[in-house]
Amino acid sequence: MAASLYPDYPPNLTAEQSDYLLTNLKDWSILNGLAVRPSFSFVSEALDPSRSLAVTAPVTLFPSLFPRVCFEEARAIQKAYNELYALIARDEDWLQEIVEELVDVDDFIANLWNIHLTVKKEGYVQPLSLGIFRSDYMVHKDPSHADSKPQIRQVEFNTIASSFGGLAAKVSGLHSHLLSISAYPPTAPSLITKATLPPNPSVKSISRGLVTAHKAYGPSKAKPQLPLCILFVVQDPENNAFDQHALASTIFEEHDVLTFRLPFHKALEHTRIPEDLTSRPLIYEPPHSPGIIYEVTTLYFRAGYAPTEYTSSKSWEARLHLERSAAIKCPSILTHLAGSKKIQQILATPSSPHLERFLATTASAEFIERVRATFAAIYPLDGTPAGKYAIDIATDPDKAKGYVLKPQREGGGNNIYGLKIPPFIRSLGNDSRKYRGHILMELIEPPALRNSIFRNGEVRSGEVIGELGVYGVCLWQHGHDVAELKTLENWEAGYLLRTKGRESEEGGVAAGFGAVDSVCLINV
Amino acid sequence: MAASLYPDYPPNLTAEQSDYLLTNLKDWSILNGLAVRPSFSFVSEALDPSRSLAVTAPVTLFPSLFPRVCFEEARAIQKAYNELYALIARDEDWLQEIVEELVDVDDFIANLWNIHLTVKKEGYVQPLSLGIFRSDYMVHKDPSHADSKPQIRQVEFNTIASSFGGLAAKVSGLHSHLLSISAYPPTAPSLITKATLPPNPSVKSISRGLVTAHKAYGPSKAKPQLPLCILFVVQDPENNAFDQHALASTIFEEHDVLTFRLPFHKALEHTRIPEDLTSRPLIYEPPHSPGIIYEVTTLYFRAGYAPTEYTSSKSWEARLHLERSAAIKCPSILTHLAGSKKIQQILATPSSPHLERFLATTASAEFIERVRATFAAIYPLDGTPAGKYAIDIATDPDKAKGYVLKPQREGGGNNIYGLKIPPFIRSLGNDSRKYRGHILMELIEPPALRNSIFRNGEVRSGEVIGELGVYGVCLWQHGHDVAELKTLENWEAGYLLRTKGRESEEGGVAAGFGAVDSVCLINV
Repeated sequence: MAASLYPDYPPNLTAEQSDYLLTNLKDWSILNGLAVRPSFSFVSEALDPSRSLAVTAPVTLFPSLFPRVCFEEARAIQKAYNELYALIARDEDWLQEIVEELVDVDDFIANLWNIHLTVKKEGYVQPLSLGIFRSDYMVHKDPSHADSKPQIRQVEFNTIASSFGGLAAKVSGLHSHLLSISAYPPTAPSLITKATLPPNPSVKSISRGLVTAHKAYGPSKAKPQLPLCILFVVQDPENNAFDQHALASTIFEEHDVLTFRLPFHKALEHTRIPEDLTSRPLIYEPPHSPGIIYEVTTLYFRAGYAPTEYTSSKSWEARLHLERSAAIKCPSILTHLAGSKKIQQILATPSSPHLERFLATTASAEFIERVRATFAAIYPLDGTPAGKYAIDIATDPDKAKGYVLKPQREGGGNNIYGLKIPPFIRSLGNDSRKYRGHILMELIEPPALRNSIFRNGEVRSGEVIGELGVYGVCLWQHGHDVAELKTLENWEAGYLLRTKGRESEEGGVAAGFGAVDSVCLINV
Repeated sequence: MAASLYPDYPPNLTAEQSDYLLTNLKDWSILNGLAVRPSFSFVSEALDPSRSLAVTAPVTLFPSLFPRVCFEEARAIQKAYNELYALIARDEDWLQEIVEELVDVDDFIANLWNIHLTVKKEGYVQPLSLGIFRSDYMVHKDPSHADSKPQIRQVEFNTIASSFGGLAAKVSGLHSHLLSISAYPPTAPSLITKATLPPNPSVKSISRGLVTAHKAYGPSKAKPQLPLCILFVVQDPENNAFDQHALASTIFEEHDVLTFRLPFHKALEHTRIPEDLTSRPLIYEPPHSPGIIYEVTTLYFRAGYAPTEYTSSKSWEARLHLERSAAIKCPSILTHLAGSKKIQQILATPSSPHLERFLATTASAEFIERVRATFAAIYPLDGTPAGKYAIDIATDPDKAKGYVLKPQREGGGNNIYGLKIPPFIRSLGNDSRKYRGHILMELIEPPALRNSIFRNGEVRSGEVIGELGVYGVCLWQHGHDVAELKTLENWEAGYLLRTKGRESEEGGVAAGFGAVDSVCLINV
């Protein structure tokens, strides 16, 4: 696609142009909080023990070329995706079926499910659920048809801790600023223009989602009534806190709603549910203001998604404690489970009926087809016909080279690509349990682009791959009968473009492999 | 004053309160560009050769107590001060008299004056002058009268590169934010409240001053006409660039006016005056966009004020080149000279008639008295009666302990305090030229306060001294006859509070001795 259509993008810079662009990039980013705390590999703990230094977040120098048709399609179907995952999170019977298949290969899923069962037994007290989702795509162009149109293919769907909404909007702002101060030299044809850099409402839109839940919570359930707040459940330390601060600051300054940050491992220490109140309000006792307490309307999880965060039974006790409270969870346990890779795999298994079943009442057949068109084929490695077909691919180097093998377990990492798959499969021996711990996914071969990434004060230029994430906000109601099930709010909430060097196989901006980017839309 | 009235201010913090305050201070500051590049003593050049790291600017943890009556008086008289210095800058004969006394003790003053003479000979082409001033004060309370009211005493008046307007407003924002998130534990009586933290409009107000000059410049004088811009003449490197960026960003985002940064030592390389245009427009040729050129409406000097910046005859050539152009200078050479310490000394010498002479037509006698009341007595060390009186003080330890000896030369530093004055005077021998290189000033003994300063990731607490600066913007017209002399714009433009540990005798936030602060007004 772009690499061939626009071989001269991004334009080469003279030393003076490069200096001007970089100086402005470095200064604008710090002036506007487009920052991260530097990693210990850049600034040692001994040099800055109080973690006061900051550095420009990893960003691209230029917005990356992106097909307008793909960008618009991804945003157009986001509301349907929100609805889909909200419906999945409410379909407890179906979830149970899927989870039960996984319990013996994935402790993490099993533990989450047990929390749900425990709270269910006691009875849920909060009928509302908030989803702040991000659906991630790559651009795919059928390599066998030179003039085929580029399409989006879903990489994953995030239902918990969908991050970078704070920084993404700022990178759009950065690239627009660099354009407006003529830091991008003219190209022919003119590619970076006001019309090709769409605004990115992610900060405002995600913040509004949290505020909507906060208001939907209603008045304090405590006696006497307490002031209300939103609680960000966070990791500690967190190098990417400024991404979260961008939301907290908008929530406070534009909506006058208080937020606090609660490290996940302090949840039991600083929150409690009064035993005598059947409504189970979650009381937050900030350690900095003894005697002044708050009631939590909304728990926004930016932690608790990775198995490694659950270091002891205390961690699970904390998650259970939060789940049984009256606070609106973003996400609830069921919503968290809805985002597991197994669900994505089942939806995307060729000939699966589930997508239609979920969306039939809210979307036309044509629209459902548009959603389905974003699926890359995903197969289980089990005894089903699809599973047998997949095992055949995974053991044959010729076929395997177009696929990626991913662990079922949550937490990312350790994907196995192409030719490395067959030897890995052999190393599993004949243990079908280990097979079932993985899924096989069609490899999306995105077009190569060029860009430069600024990270830790250094610029690296070369071939890159972009991954588009579209945010969605959805607030819905659970209930015991169908009449009570309803979606209260549902909107598309801006986008993230993450770009990484083509040689690095893992995504993850915070992990240091990639950069936050913005789109420069092109017609292809 | 405060130390005795409010011995418990600022309140002591528990470890949790301190952690909450500091975490929020560190994060809010980076989120909002209240930052500096770290000094090389904190982060070595080898670790961060591209100067990408940033750190919270030196700030106080709490707003410092400040008498409301002093704060209001300082702001109320700022317009009179603006008028005064605009009038001085237009009184060429009087300036000449003063400068001629200094030419043999101060090369810097002599060189500035020569630039004026050279441009005058050729003829000035720009009748407008912009002043962005800052009048600096300390609170003074007569130690011999326990119940006397606190008063302000002027420390100096800045007519060039009046800095920290960008960061000062942000520190007001920081302290207000910390209040609003309950990071300041309650005190009795309640001191930090919305009503005691006045808003600080410095960024918006100073930016508006530059934009006003930009618009007053009128249309392009070049043929063909060129796009217009404001040029910030800056030092390079500049650790305090974010202070300036706060202005540039407001000018661009709120007024849609382009600004560029020109290192002073690059002035001859990147600007030129077309020889065939008698209107002498200043053309800026940005090195990053060859072929696209701009006309400079306004030269905003954030460099060129320190003698050490004039490293060769090229530096003086550059200053002359800029001065003779049609750009509105902030400040012009005459305005720069009006800010020399000698002027302050002459105005403040007891029984001096000049203040009245300048302000008689624009201010009432009562108002002139209010301005005069802000002067600390300043004496020359020369053969005049006042000078002889001063030499008598400076050589007597008993008398000298209430004074400070300051060099006439511009550029700050090397003040000599109290008991150190007599031995220093002796070291000068009988060289009256060296005597005349200094002024003697009544020492202002401000009340001791307590506060904590956050700098380079470390907190230091103890006794501090605050210095209040009030910004003023003034645009006026020079001319050949009196009818053409007029003040076009004049307003007070916000404030700066700089706070330093009581043990450090020099001010200077950028130099690392102090911190940017905000006021918490008290009634005394």
